[in-house]
Amino acid sequence: MKYTREILKEVEGYVPGEQPRMPNIIKLNTNENPYPPSPKVIEALRNLPHDAMRKYPDPLSLEFRTECAKRYGYPSPEWVTVGNGMDELLSLAVRTFADPGDAILTTYPTYTLYETLARLHGARPLFVDLDEDFQLTETFFATHARLCLLPRPNAPSGVCPPRADIERLCRDFNGIVVIDEAYVDFSDDNCMDFPQRFDNAVVMRTFSKSFSLAGMRIGVAVAQPDIIAEFIKVKDSYNLNAVSQAAGLAAMRDYETMLENANKVRATRTRLMDALRTLGFRVPPSQSNFVLAQWDGQPTAREIFDALRKRAIIVRYFNAPRLDNAIRITVGTEQETDALLEALHEIL
Amino acid sequence: MKYTREILKEVEGYVPGEQPRMPNIIKLNTNENPYPPSPKVIEALRNLPHDAMRKYPDPLSLEFRTECAKRYGYPSPEWVTVGNGMDELLSLAVRTFADPGDAILTTYPTYTLYETLARLHGARPLFVDLDEDFQLTETFFATHARLCLLPRPNAPSGVCPPRADIERLCRDFNGIVVIDEAYVDFSDDNCMDFPQRFDNAVVMRTFSKSFSLAGMRIGVAVAQPDIIAEFIKVKDSYNLNAVSQAAGLAAMRDYETMLENANKVRATRTRLMDALRTLGFRVPPSQSNFVLAQWDGQPTAREIFDALRKRAIIVRYFNAPRLDNAIRITVGTEQETDALLEALHEIL
Repeated sequence: MKYTREILKEVEGYVPGEQPRMPNIIKLNTNENPYPPSPKVIEALRNLPHDAMRKYPDPLSLEFRTECAKRYGYPSPEWVTVGNGMDELLSLAVRTFADPGDAILTTYPTYTLYETLARLHGARPLFVDLDEDFQLTETFFATHARLCLLPRPNAPSGVCPPRADIERLCRDFNGIVVIDEAYVDFSDDNCMDFPQRFDNAVVMRTFSKSFSLAGMRIGVAVAQPDIIAEFIKVKDSYNLNAVSQAAGLAAMRDYETMLENANKVRATRTRLMDALRTLGFRVPPSQSNFVLAQWDGQPTAREIFDALRKRAIIVRYFNAPRLDNAIRITVGTEQETDALLEALHEIL
Repeated sequence: MKYTREILKEVEGYVPGEQPRMPNIIKLNTNENPYPPSPKVIEALRNLPHDAMRKYPDPLSLEFRTECAKRYGYPSPEWVTVGNGMDELLSLAVRTFADPGDAILTTYPTYTLYETLARLHGARPLFVDLDEDFQLTETFFATHARLCLLPRPNAPSGVCPPRADIERLCRDFNGIVVIDEAYVDFSDDNCMDFPQRFDNAVVMRTFSKSFSLAGMRIGVAVAQPDIIAEFIKVKDSYNLNAVSQAAGLAAMRDYETMLENANKVRATRTRLMDALRTLGFRVPPSQSNFVLAQWDGQPTAREIFDALRKRAIIVRYFNAPRLDNAIRITVGTEQETDALLEALHEIL
């Protein structure tokens, strides 16, 4: 395309996980929550006044941000911004805190979107290998960059680096540190207090996983007010539509339902990890709503993926170093997990 | 903020029109449609399956894009992309088709968001004055740039340049020409056929005005498939949430309701323009759902704006060259227009 910017010509877009529309599949490939969202969310949508559709939404999402601040222990909405999914907030972080040409630090493996966002911006992603246990290394801490994007828990391993490691990173890193807590509601601890303590820490959350609202595209970023002001300057004015603001607010006010669903997922995760290990998989300790099931024998991981698919069970396979001997499995309902384990018994 | 990119430090964010939340005001400041959206949209939202909230939306919005292509006379969804409001599509156009440092051509006056988007990207907005009648000039046609952003009808004058002018522009301009048709459903003609004829033409539409869906954030871009592919590469994967996809689809399938509402607005616009002229305003011929009411006497336009506000009638005042002697008035219902005219009678 002759009108396209040169720097974009070599960039491939992000390839999202498959969203098959066939009925009766067991979908364990994109880390959705198997349980429905809060009934309060559904009610909020049903009761949305017509005028909320007709008029522009609040460009600052003030009511929703105020509720988030309260829930996350911050004194005012100036500590919070919201986005059209965490994807938008990650894109804003790249476009606000790194110049084209700058290095953006992350790990390997990591959430693959980071690389796409860096390249679309003309920045240079730096991947520093995690160790064998998917933990941060001294090389990582010694690497300089303009911006750091770090998922905690890590995707796609599900492993959580210790909080002390993130503290060290925020203290020593000369740039913004985005702590991507997309999956943290399934974890034992989190870093939501870091923005109070570090002027370069941005904690991001999504409503796609623990709140069962992937379809609504809602992300939240928490940071010191001068960082938040930059996000607000760069974002599209009306980035969160009226329905997502209402849904996010209702979901946040019914935090209990989210916690209940997250606890159910965690219980199933324990059972799934045990069963996979019994079947012979190596499974790093997941603090997330998915597990990385590593498998070195025959059939290959790719063949297991294909065989599951033939049985209408969709998991994720990454054709990439260190991951091509594994399948990533979203934690589904108890019944879905039974079906998966039964299918694996047959296949192996 | 020490971590912010240098180029952003001087940029002011876009200031959207005020969204006052007081009850009982007459809101004629942000060009919303005074009539409710199609009942089919409301029905689609009520009937949205829970799973549409829980699961990721279709990243490619294929069903909605297919409907748009059909309606706009294009053979396939590859000619169409959709966005989180037209704002997102304009931002994508800037980030895809202009490098930092490049010139972006527009007129003066124009939609003020263009300047913000250009500056946030580090590009240089070039403003070429419209003539006294708010039409394009020879200087405009002779100006080179990487990208052109042109609202047709123009905002905030409401004036439509002839189609022949846009043809000439697309033919002669060496870069992408975005024809911003946000308001074109209120106009006598449009340029939706241009993408078939010009490999650099992008026509954009919004559902915020004629479809009465400002709260849902839905924009559409139509262009040749190789341009659309670039937009899709650069956009956030899941840029349009499940509800907006469903709402946009339902609205498009009930095109008649949109046309009826647009015709009502056009009829009221004629009456409003006549009455304003009788009151002594100069009013450029508007092809939009707003009118620019120019006023050179006493009280000043600013004072008229303030006096209307005291009567709970909110219009728009631009403190900017060529516009500071005018108020911009959204075409409301018949009753709102009566109230506005009565108030102006009292004030003048």
